[in-house]
Amino acid sequence: MRIRVINPNTTASMTAKIGAAARAVAGPGTEIDAVNPEYGPVSIEGHYDEAIAAAAMLEEVRKGEAEGVDGYVIACFGDPGLLAAREVASGPVLGIAEAAMHAASFLSTGFSVVTTLGRTKIIAHHLAQAYGMAQFCRNIRACELEVLALEDERSDARRIITQECKRAIDEDEAGAIVLGCAGMTDLAKAIERELQVPVIDGVTVAVKFVEALVGCGLGTSKRGDLAYPIPKAYTGRR
Amino acid sequence: MRIRVINPNTTASMTAKIGAAARAVAGPGTEIDAVNPEYGPVSIEGHYDEAIAAAAMLEEVRKGEAEGVDGYVIACFGDPGLLAAREVASGPVLGIAEAAMHAASFLSTGFSVVTTLGRTKIIAHHLAQAYGMAQFCRNIRACELEVLALEDERSDARRIITQECKRAIDEDEAGAIVLGCAGMTDLAKAIERELQVPVIDGVTVAVKFVEALVGCGLGTSKRGDLAYPIPKAYTGRR
Amino acid sequence: MRIRVINPNTTASMTAKIGAAARAVAGPGTEIDAVNPEYGPVSIEGHYDEAIAAAAMLEEVRKGEAEGVDGYVIACFGDPGLLAAREVASGPVLGIAEAAMHAASFLSTGFSVVTTLGRTKIIAHHLAQAYGMAQFCRNIRACELEVLALEDERSDARRIITQECKRAIDEDEAGAIVLGCAGMTDLAKAIERELQVPVIDGVTVAVKFVEALVGCGLGTSKRGDLAYPIPKAYTGRR
Amino acid sequence: MRIRVINPNTTASMTAKIGAAARAVAGPGTEIDAVNPEYGPVSIEGHYDEAIAAAAMLEEVRKGEAEGVDGYVIACFGDPGLLAAREVASGPVLGIAEAAMHAASFLSTGFSVVTTLGRTKIIAHHLAQAYGMAQFCRNIRACELEVLALEDERSDARRIITQECKRAIDEDEAGAIVLGCAGMTDLAKAIERELQVPVIDGVTVAVKFVEALVGCGLGTSKRGDLAYPIPKAYTGRR
Amino acid sequence: MRIRVINPNTTASMTAKIGAAARAVAGPGTEIDAVNPEYGPVSIEGHYDEAIAAAAMLEEVRKGEAEGVDGYVIACFGDPGLLAAREVASGPVLGIAEAAMHAASFLSTGFSVVTTLGRTKIIAHHLAQAYGMAQFCRNIRACELEVLALEDERSDARRIITQECKRAIDEDEAGAIVLGCAGMTDLAKAIERELQVPVIDGVTVAVKFVEALVGCGLGTSKRGDLAYPIPKAYTGRR
Amino acid sequence: MRIRVINPNTTASMTAKIGAAARAVAGPGTEIDAVNPEYGPVSIEGHYDEAIAAAAMLEEVRKGEAEGVDGYVIACFGDPGLLAAREVASGPVLGIAEAAMHAASFLSTGFSVVTTLGRTKIIAHHLAQAYGMAQFCRNIRACELEVLALEDERSDARRIITQECKRAIDEDEAGAIVLGCAGMTDLAKAIERELQVPVIDGVTVAVKFVEALVGCGLGTSKRGDLAYPIPKAYTGRR
Repeated sequence: MRIRVINPNTTASMTAKIGAAARAVAGPGTEIDAVNPEYGPVSIEGHYDEAIAAAAMLEEVRKGEAEGVDGYVIACFGDPGLLAAREVASGPVLGIAEAAMHAASFLSTGFSVVTTLGRTKIIAHHLAQAYGMAQFCRNIRACELEVLALEDERSDARRIITQECKRAIDEDEAGAIVLGCAGMTDLAKAIERELQVPVIDGVTVAVKFVEALVGCGLGTSKRGDLAYPIPKAYTGRR
Repeated sequence: MRIRVINPNTTASMTAKIGAAARAVAGPGTEIDAVNPEYGPVSIEGHYDEAIAAAAMLEEVRKGEAEGVDGYVIACFGDPGLLAAREVASGPVLGIAEAAMHAASFLSTGFSVVTTLGRTKIIAHHLAQAYGMAQFCRNIRACELEVLALEDERSDARRIITQECKRAIDEDEAGAIVLGCAGMTDLAKAIERELQVPVIDGVTVAVKFVEALVGCGLGTSKRGDLAYPIPKAYTGRR
Repeated sequence: MRIRVINPNTTASMTAKIGAAARAVAGPGTEIDAVNPEYGPVSIEGHYDEAIAAAAMLEEVRKGEAEGVDGYVIACFGDPGLLAAREVASGPVLGIAEAAMHAASFLSTGFSVVTTLGRTKIIAHHLAQAYGMAQFCRNIRACELEVLALEDERSDARRIITQECKRAIDEDEAGAIVLGCAGMTDLAKAIERELQVPVIDGVTVAVKFVEALVGCGLGTSKRGDLAYPIPKAYTGRR
Repeated sequence: MRIRVINPNTTASMTAKIGAAARAVAGPGTEIDAVNPEYGPVSIEGHYDEAIAAAAMLEEVRKGEAEGVDGYVIACFGDPGLLAAREVASGPVLGIAEAAMHAASFLSTGFSVVTTLGRTKIIAHHLAQAYGMAQFCRNIRACELEVLALEDERSDARRIITQECKRAIDEDEAGAIVLGCAGMTDLAKAIERELQVPVIDGVTVAVKFVEALVGCGLGTSKRGDLAYPIPKAYTGRR
Repeated sequence: MRIRVINPNTTASMTAKIGAAARAVAGPGTEIDAVNPEYGPVSIEGHYDEAIAAAAMLEEVRKGEAEGVDGYVIACFGDPGLLAAREVASGPVLGIAEAAMHAASFLSTGFSVVTTLGRTKIIAHHLAQAYGMAQFCRNIRACELEVLALEDERSDARRIITQECKRAIDEDEAGAIVLGCAGMTDLAKAIERELQVPVIDGVTVAVKFVEALVGCGLGTSKRGDLAYPIPKAYTGRR
Repeated sequence: MRIRVINPNTTASMTAKIGAAARAVAGPGTEIDAVNPEYGPVSIEGHYDEAIAAAAMLEEVRKGEAEGVDGYVIACFGDPGLLAAREVASGPVLGIAEAAMHAASFLSTGFSVVTTLGRTKIIAHHLAQAYGMAQFCRNIRACELEVLALEDERSDARRIITQECKRAIDEDEAGAIVLGCAGMTDLAKAIERELQVPVIDGVTVAVKFVEALVGCGLGTSKRGDLAYPIPKAYTGRR
């Protein structure tokens, strides 16, 4: 099967890292297709960035459908455009926040999210409510790291994130940690080894859950709410 | 004061109708500026349409800020891009679903929404939850009318909508009706006279609530979650 | 239009202050009619005070209806007798807690309430739940100031309240402050200037929201729950 | 011990019926003291009636405290003035809606309320939410009977109520019925025999729960929210 | 009437203590029958212990039914097997967590639970949600005491528990304390005297609530969800 | 990897059917180990059956741990003993109701459950709340089929279930169907083909989700709530 993992921002190095993480867990018959939109912000750190990136990301789903892609992962922790992507796709579409939060509820009775900038905490909070996961989410913590700091090898990111995860365990009594940024995908296992609780990276979990659904022959419901978009005239110039 | 009322779809006749409705209720010192994006779908009837329209709508808020606009109304019942628009704007931004649902909770103990196509009911449902209005929302009803049917004088739209509103009163025991589409703005008063319950059109209520907030000297919080978007590089071509 | 602003306690100086605040924001065609009940407690600081004041306050709504008043504001942060007043009135009735909390949800993703005595926090908490605003309310904080201290120019009230608002911003990450007492109406703008977040006074916002609803031709639903009270025999002596 | 059962309306025959029901279940050492306020509406069928009755009812609690009453029951299904009464009382105070709903949650996984007029359903609905009982409340049904019809032996009340209870069992899959008016107290056992599910009358259950709490040496918390009302000047004339 | 109080663990000294507490509050006509299962763990401190104990506890309910017992109390704060016991029993069945939390909501606007080991906090949390009591539960606090330490007279248990209760009052602003273990039943009154807020022991309250329900002639609903278990073949060997 | 799929009832034919379904979707490296407890009811249709089966089921998890099993599926729609099993296991443990409901929320905006007997609906309802899935669950429908009718080839089960699924789509506007019994695992694909919406069988989805989690190197959190059970004395005889 072919799974398209879409990094909704335009930072190619992050797309490559996400693709590598996805491939590392994918099953033998799974082809991972890591892409990012042609146009858009280099990182997503707020509602405005998300809205711009969502529209661009949807283009990648449309292309995927034309190419016969079996399922999709939206690899930004705000899960921008998730329901819109589900309208476009016939196969399953998962967001990484969605996949990670659900997985955390399978492995613990309560988790904390550790994310980048404080201003994005509200996005994780809204998603937890939308997914029914608020009752499992003990806290959402920010490291006040910019997303692109995760791409900078000289940054202190790993140490700061690990420290915040440790606080989540001690202060929130979190049984599991959800990493709140696709760019943290390469840190999960090291932090897990250090802290000895499940540290969940949404990229890998989302890929495996899409595999699972496709493996059960399941796709997005095309009846009612998530039916294909109504073909529609577009006017004006872009 | 100057209020920009943004119709997020690109149907100019609907923009004109919305502008007229806004002007009819605006206070003496209020200038209404009814616009629509340069590019996008002619109507919004699902998550995909919304995602595309939201990005285009935000451009109108950005222009508004440059021109010193005091407040904004997003005149589509899905309130697309609301939080993103709040990041961009310094003054208040209201969605028409938001304004109408809140108004209905001021005037009744429970309301029903009467909207266009069944597939959009989920959008109203999610908004009611996001706004804390789910506990007041007794039902969401669709007329299975396309949005553009509201622009067609020969259509049976008014009769069908009135009938559905009547069912909401009788079957849902709704104390007020929220009309679920900006294109219904011209129907509210006639239906209200016929059914003798408050029939709430979000366009007019949102304009007055923005006026109210600006009149109190209040704007969008620029501290934390809704601070101006972080200036950011955009790569690739559109 | 004529809006009656009812201070449910019997402290005339507070009624005057509330009336002045209301007039300062009212539109050109709006007449503000600030009153308080003939009988009752000089301040409202608990459920018992509220119950007594509510019955007396309703008399002012009954008189207002006889005089053709267009809308009402209940100017005590517990919103005593709100639904009963809606039964009596044909026009809109808003409580100041209700108006302020809703306004805060329009301007921020989360607010904190700063109120007088700790024992009244539960009242604000119950109102937030009743209005669907609990999901936006990050905290309710008390200054342990008696209501009448706000009427005493020599008191340290302003400094203490400002300090608590500052804590709300820093510790609760509140994007907006809701002032939890009608007697704080004159402090809002000064605190807002100092702290640089929206500081919302329910008196002024409620007046403007009532103006907005009347301006849209909307009144309280008289169908079902909020229909006029059933005429009824009263026995015994008062 | 001495339990005061307060009928908040002024219909003496209803007070007598409530007193008789209370005495029929009271334990050997319990003295039942059935009273109603000196002034007020003859029945309570809406928010306005409730607000007026609540203030009058509180006078009976104040007198009770002076006389050393051990606990109180507010015998109107809207539980008017419950929290205010708790401030005044040192012993336990229960409302009959509160007691009945909690009892129903002990005996079934879901109950329906069968009440008098449709306009009072919202009151039961708000109480279910305030008490945490909404998740057990499958429906609230009205018989469109006025409260005083229950006092009229020639009325068809019993048959109509039984029929509505039967519908609740069949259509709502209710495991228990909560009778939604103190005036139905004499009907519970006959309906229970006929329908073979628990039919819960709040008057009797509330009396026994107050007995239970007093029997455990428990009274209302006087720490914080429910501390005695702050002594306060009352101005003006009644 | 005859009430069976079942200690689901197999520590006889705890069963005796629970029985004594129950008898101390039982009414004149009530016979208390304190038992524990023949087989099972000596204390219950997690989900696994609960699952094992629940099955054994149910045997005691089955025996009780054969002997004509009128009502049951499950005397472990996790209320193991509560709904299963209700299927088996014709009379009322209450859990001590259930009874205590409900009682606390009658006496205060918010309570804190003080329990034994931290790992059991999640159980109390889940119960508060299941009973609709989460909105009254301000905190759940653990003393990190093993259950059997409560049976050891030389342990420091009472002092540690009292201290945690005091913190609940000061830090959580709890108006009442719910003791989170049947083994604390003998401590409630002493702590209450010291701290001057209601300190609620579920064993005594549950006994009195069962008495109350039986006294009103009420039993578990045998219609629908809680009907007697379907007679069923059991295969294999135990 | 080795996944143990535990049928908590003792009907061997059902265990075989479940095992076959699991193997049909399992990945190349996955060994499916389908078992049932040695002792217990032949079917599970209520809380009592569940409590008995849960204790027996846990024995199979204990054995699995001794044998190095990597993950577990509890293959009964009530997910009996789920949290207890998580305490015992080091790898992931999923219930089939849990897996199916979560999968349905990935593929649709709302699902309906179609289950066997009406009395078990409450179990599915409680699980939906416990898992945060209530907001996605549009209805729970019973076919009034006994579980073992699913094992009887001559029964009309498939037709009846398909019909109820169709009603769920038409009347509940369900976008996906969750089959509410492990014994329906062989019907899912045929019903899906007929009704053209995702029809989700928890057995297969749970197996794939456990595979997914193990594939990401994730196991149950052993920190806090779900730590291994405290070793404990068991007294008495079974």
